Amino acid sequence: MIHFRQAAAQDLERIVEMLADDDLGSQRERFEDPLPPCYMKAFEAIDADPNNELVVACEGNAVIGVFQITFTPYITHQGGWRATIEGVRTCSAVRGRGIGAKLIEWGISLAKERGCHLVQLTTDKKRTDALRFYERLGFQNTHEGLKMKL
Amino acid sequence: MIHFRQAAAQDLERIVEMLADDDLGSQRERFEDPLPPCYMKAFEAIDADPNNELVVACEGNAVIGVFQITFTPYITHQGGWRATIEGVRTCSAVRGRGIGAKLIEWGISLAKERGCHLVQLTTDKKRTDALRFYERLGFQNTHEGLKMKL
Repeated sequence: MIHFRQAAAQDLERIVEMLADDDLGSQRERFEDPLPPCYMKAFEAIDADPNNELVVACEGNAVIGVFQITFTPYITHQGGWRATIEGVRTCSAVRGRGIGAKLIEWGISLAKERGCHLVQLTTDKKRTDALRFYERLGFQNTHEGLKMKL
Repeated sequence: MIHFRQAAAQDLERIVEMLADDDLGSQRERFEDPLPPCYMKAFEAIDADPNNELVVACEGNAVIGVFQITFTPYITHQGGWRATIEGVRTCSAVRGRGIGAKLIEWGISLAKERGCHLVQLTTDKKRTDALRFYERLGFQNTHEGLKMKL
């Protein structure tokens, strides 16, 4: 039985482990002991922000998935709020069990609770499986996602 | 001479006018007199949020452009902050003068000031000119931008 809850500080090591256990994530995360303090600093900023939630999926006591969801008020679309999902990962041991879909469905339910008119995310064009996954869940691939490193 | 400042409540009518003066925007905005209250509600939410800024470009007293920028702490990328730009418009009378590029450059400078490692945006695949515009400014089209209406 899977349940979802807001991440706590003690989940952070496990969260970074999942983020790093990924082709792209392994190149940009630092899953080290002790964890680099930058992660706790980000955790605290998210935790303090009422429009930002870090959510974990748990099976019993084990954290098996994570995503971050941000709620943003915009002037566009008649002043509508949007939810943005980012940093979605499930632990490799549970892949193939549909946990990823449950994570996203949970994110969608949070977006609805908050009255968002839209839920959005970007996915790296290299992640062709992820694109198909999101399209199966009902996302429309209508936009280009542009990034600039600073 | 163009200058930038945070939008004030009295700019809102002009901002919605610019958002609506656009092929896609005209289908989804309501530039009416009086302005539907949903816009002021969104303005107040943005104004109250320290991680969210509505910025206008002005020439003398005239508002000639607008964009919204949101600063978000993430766990991914070693706890890096990102800036997301949305709702970029210039007034039709000034198009062709490079004002759009100045808007985005201003957004990039705000993102740098806030220590963001990345600035990002999505653009509708139907806006082929916009895609070329952002690529010329140095954005990489690395991601798919997926949306789901709720």
